[in-house]
Amino acid sequence: MRKANIGVIGAGRIGRIHARNLKFQIPGAKLIAIADVVFESAKTLANELEIPVYEQDYRRLLRKDDIQAVVICSSTDTHAQIMIEAAEAGKHIFCEKPIALEMEKIDRALSAVDKAGIKLQVGFNRRFDPSFKKAKELIEAGKIGIPQLLRISSRDPQPPPIEYVKVSGGLFLDMMIHDFDMARYLLKEEVTEMMATGHCLINPSIGLCGDIDTAVVLLKFRSGALGTIDNSRQAVYGYDQRIEVFGSEGSVVVENKTPTEVTLHSAESIQSDKPLYFFLERYQEAYLAEMDHFVTCILEDKEPCVGGLDGKISVAMGYAALESLSKRTFVKVDIG
Amino acid sequence: MRKANIGVIGAGRIGRIHARNLKFQIPGAKLIAIADVVFESAKTLANELEIPVYEQDYRRLLRKDDIQAVVICSSTDTHAQIMIEAAEAGKHIFCEKPIALEMEKIDRALSAVDKAGIKLQVGFNRRFDPSFKKAKELIEAGKIGIPQLLRISSRDPQPPPIEYVKVSGGLFLDMMIHDFDMARYLLKEEVTEMMATGHCLINPSIGLCGDIDTAVVLLKFRSGALGTIDNSRQAVYGYDQRIEVFGSEGSVVVENKTPTEVTLHSAESIQSDKPLYFFLERYQEAYLAEMDHFVTCILEDKEPCVGGLDGKISVAMGYAALESLSKRTFVKVDIG
Amino acid sequence: MRKANIGVIGAGRIGRIHARNLKFQIPGAKLIAIADVVFESAKTLANELEIPVYEQDYRRLLRKDDIQAVVICSSTDTHAQIMIEAAEAGKHIFCEKPIALEMEKIDRALSAVDKAGIKLQVGFNRRFDPSFKKAKELIEAGKIGIPQLLRISSRDPQPPPIEYVKVSGGLFLDMMIHDFDMARYLLKEEVTEMMATGHCLINPSIGLCGDIDTAVVLLKFRSGALGTIDNSRQAVYGYDQRIEVFGSEGSVVVENKTPTEVTLHSAESIQSDKPLYFFLERYQEAYLAEMDHFVTCILEDKEPCVGGLDGKISVAMGYAALESLSKRTFVKVDIG
Amino acid sequence: MRKANIGVIGAGRIGRIHARNLKFQIPGAKLIAIADVVFESAKTLANELEIPVYEQDYRRLLRKDDIQAVVICSSTDTHAQIMIEAAEAGKHIFCEKPIALEMEKIDRALSAVDKAGIKLQVGFNRRFDPSFKKAKELIEAGKIGIPQLLRISSRDPQPPPIEYVKVSGGLFLDMMIHDFDMARYLLKEEVTEMMATGHCLINPSIGLCGDIDTAVVLLKFRSGALGTIDNSRQAVYGYDQRIEVFGSEGSVVVENKTPTEVTLHSAESIQSDKPLYFFLERYQEAYLAEMDHFVTCILEDKEPCVGGLDGKISVAMGYAALESLSKRTFVKVDIG
Repeated sequence: MRKANIGVIGAGRIGRIHARNLKFQIPGAKLIAIADVVFESAKTLANELEIPVYEQDYRRLLRKDDIQAVVICSSTDTHAQIMIEAAEAGKHIFCEKPIALEMEKIDRALSAVDKAGIKLQVGFNRRFDPSFKKAKELIEAGKIGIPQLLRISSRDPQPPPIEYVKVSGGLFLDMMIHDFDMARYLLKEEVTEMMATGHCLINPSIGLCGDIDTAVVLLKFRSGALGTIDNSRQAVYGYDQRIEVFGSEGSVVVENKTPTEVTLHSAESIQSDKPLYFFLERYQEAYLAEMDHFVTCILEDKEPCVGGLDGKISVAMGYAALESLSKRTFVKVDIG
Repeated sequence: MRKANIGVIGAGRIGRIHARNLKFQIPGAKLIAIADVVFESAKTLANELEIPVYEQDYRRLLRKDDIQAVVICSSTDTHAQIMIEAAEAGKHIFCEKPIALEMEKIDRALSAVDKAGIKLQVGFNRRFDPSFKKAKELIEAGKIGIPQLLRISSRDPQPPPIEYVKVSGGLFLDMMIHDFDMARYLLKEEVTEMMATGHCLINPSIGLCGDIDTAVVLLKFRSGALGTIDNSRQAVYGYDQRIEVFGSEGSVVVENKTPTEVTLHSAESIQSDKPLYFFLERYQEAYLAEMDHFVTCILEDKEPCVGGLDGKISVAMGYAALESLSKRTFVKVDIG
Repeated sequence: MRKANIGVIGAGRIGRIHARNLKFQIPGAKLIAIADVVFESAKTLANELEIPVYEQDYRRLLRKDDIQAVVICSSTDTHAQIMIEAAEAGKHIFCEKPIALEMEKIDRALSAVDKAGIKLQVGFNRRFDPSFKKAKELIEAGKIGIPQLLRISSRDPQPPPIEYVKVSGGLFLDMMIHDFDMARYLLKEEVTEMMATGHCLINPSIGLCGDIDTAVVLLKFRSGALGTIDNSRQAVYGYDQRIEVFGSEGSVVVENKTPTEVTLHSAESIQSDKPLYFFLERYQEAYLAEMDHFVTCILEDKEPCVGGLDGKISVAMGYAALESLSKRTFVKVDIG
Repeated sequence: MRKANIGVIGAGRIGRIHARNLKFQIPGAKLIAIADVVFESAKTLANELEIPVYEQDYRRLLRKDDIQAVVICSSTDTHAQIMIEAAEAGKHIFCEKPIALEMEKIDRALSAVDKAGIKLQVGFNRRFDPSFKKAKELIEAGKIGIPQLLRISSRDPQPPPIEYVKVSGGLFLDMMIHDFDMARYLLKEEVTEMMATGHCLINPSIGLCGDIDTAVVLLKFRSGALGTIDNSRQAVYGYDQRIEVFGSEGSVVVENKTPTEVTLHSAESIQSDKPLYFFLERYQEAYLAEMDHFVTCILEDKEPCVGGLDGKISVAMGYAALESLSKRTFVKVDIG
């Protein structure tokens, strides 16, 4: 069987997931090298997975002729630079979202990718979730007619550490970016304008960083369809990820996933499971499926279904939301 | 048993429902007279329910000394005038929503009510729906902590006749007015600003009347809580009435009510009931409960829990939505 | 509008329900007389409903020429005798279940009915429940193919008073009799054999009366289909009434009915409503629908869909269960 | 990290699953050898998983000193013999169910295990399903009080090939054996008597093999609790695996698992997912968890929670069911 040789750059939480999937669950992939700016992290993961090569400097990976593709899981501020170098080295690229927090950096990275003619997939894992994928398929099959209303509720079980909040780019670019992408993905059309509102209602420290923790954004799509996205940094009952798309012939609703199908009936109440608590459990299948897609695209020379432009537009939408929040008006989404 | 003698003004669809409930299901009420501008309608209903008095002119009801209260179910444009005369005649008033489509008319009617010192209940029946009432109770009991996000989805099974659309006051004043009231009711606080969007996506004839059939409104509450309301004139799967209130300690979700609890499992799919199709079925219990509340307030000399100010504010919110829609900005809700 | 004049015999709990329905909710009925062995009960109910005639002796009702039908809600031991006399008086009969606890009494009553040629409907209200009725319709429409397995779970919220248990005829004749009827109704075929098991697991006083409070009965149908019925006198979470029919092309499942559609999501759990607690609430619509059916049958000269033979077979099944329980073998159902 | 060296015997469908799990998902295991009576099967799987040793004769595995444990996934008729030899060779044993179809063979195998003092785990994977495990935990925690009623519905999506039916031992020993084990597991007590019924309702060819395809078994537990198990070889809507345990303080209900959480609302109906279709998907997590438990027991020198006696009793229950079916009486379960 033909296999794609792959290197993983960044051995943190998400890097470890991709590395394990590549090693054990994707028959078409051969994980052969790991790099991390903290050498010990690279080494530990490599040993654990019996990967022969581990490096501190990702450039040494890029110089290896037998590597066809890299999976970029380093910190956000390094994504664009690594992408540029990887593209120049002729490596296919899977890059975690966001490509960058600055539009110019994104443009530079995408233009390097274009020039090199290599494949780029951006890590919008939720597109590969079985439920959201089925929703998309039902919509594309015309089961709900013409979409008219979209609703995304996307809420974390608890806020990230304040240290993370500070460098995250803020709620719109760090958290709602997934939902911006989901909105475009499900309706298969662009958002033309948006109106953002938000407050710091959960943790005042988040407000002190200049960020918000609760937000509702109103979307207008090209077709006239309307949408809302609500985000909260803290849903005490767990990770809440629900979607509804309503159209002229029906609607499709995605509910949360639970760890079990058990209900307890007692004199007090009927109790069922809370949603899966953490995004790593919730999107476990999606992380695997997106990487499988990337590897398949390499092996079969196809274009990944979520590419550089998707990465760019979602960031542009984040900036439009920020602008709307401060201006208190509708803001057009500028996708250049 | 002491009973309140009641007259119903308006023997149309909703008048018939209130009349039947008063006659058969509310032990504290004695329905003794019916008026309708179409004399035959008054007569038919009176005969059917064995009510001794039926009149074409409501004023003849107002002059009857043995009537303590009237239930106003005539056409919207007559509500305010009848209210004023009923108040002057010292009758307690149950009035269908909206009180009027013009703020000055509402003010005049409410001031007559104030002056007369009679009781006024406005027909926001949904407040009396068992599910929404339970949601309200859970919120008031602190079960979800401090409310942060509200979502109301309220969709009709099919658009009303164009003739009705023309005189309805438009989607915000005719349909969303219920949701505006629900928002205030559930969160027990006022909306300070709103941003409305909407289109004519379903039936172009509605657009030709200058109305919209699909709308999303973004609400800001005094406390910082955020809300959205979406309305559609046509949900092909039936009458869709769902609510979610999300807070610092949890959330409360109200799903649709179905005619049966049957599911059919076949080789093709698992099928369950569509929601109850029509508002009269969906809110059957609520119509009864609101009238029972009104009668109880009369008999026990208590203030109805949904009064004139509620009727006024919901209309003011409708006008704010209209203004926002045309100005494309946030608009403050002016409640005088 | 033509109306059937009706008298109610027995002004206890169930008699009051039928009387209220006849008075207020069934346009084709005119309730004109009430009898109860306790005169005060008859009088009170008659006054409450403004019924002109109330008697202690039901025979005085049977002698009234303007009464076309009687609704027998007296104590079980009087049903058969009243039925015989009512039949002889040419009155149509609605009789609460069971017709009698003794097979000979049932036979005598049914033969009087036959001879008189009047209509008889037995009070198996559950056949008129919207959910069970829909299940039946789906089965008859062939949606699940040929039925192969049936399951009925039927559990009370709490045991009846011991005084009632003593005269009830025991769990099989008092409680499971409804499920026996439901089994025949849904599958539209007879049970040929059954094997009954049961214990006193809830309240030892029930055992001291020679009764059981927990039972499982295995049914064999003529076609080879198999069924189980489980009964418990105490489900702490409320009145539990669920059914599943499984066939060659699918299955139909009926779940419990709840007072609201509210769920509360908190850090501890997701909580939803317990089932409606009491049979009067659970089967409110069914009580109305069965009486409406009875009245319609009188007015339109049709045969009620649940008649004397249904009343007889369900009791025969109860005796078969008792015999099986003591013999510990399969017992044939003898329907004479 | 200390690892247990393991050999897999039998490279068929279930052997491949265990092998993949041992190789990729269980950090404490090192899969070092595979045997299969069809040499090519062993070789193919070994190559695929990069396992150094593959053999036709399992005895060569048993002779390898560096193997601590074997996972027996060969055909049922070989289980007992391999167990005896593996025990004599001092290897810990994971054996797929059933140990054997003959009680004497089971006894001989278990006595060899006893004598050797090695660990034995029998492959009742469903005990490790997250939902059933949670149900068990809730019961053990006293959340439903004293169990009184048990119901297991266990239905395959389609019958196995007739060739398989012929050697399967029949529905009770092949299919319901899982449910017998589940019944004992959940209630933590033994079944004393059972009454079995069954027919061939689905496929006449199954009847020609002397087997049945539809069955209901009634269980009596030591405590007086009652239970039913229903099995069908064909649920057209998919693999149906539901359980309910009802007790003095409540009940616990396990519903089916679905591939997604999507519902489609249309003018025709509300449609949701059918259950996961196949046991390999349905119990994917359970297969992994049971193997993880086995490896943990080896590494930490603990007794597996599902051992030889569990394997024996479930087969004894199968024989009791067969005897009951032919005698048409209750039969005691003889566990020697």
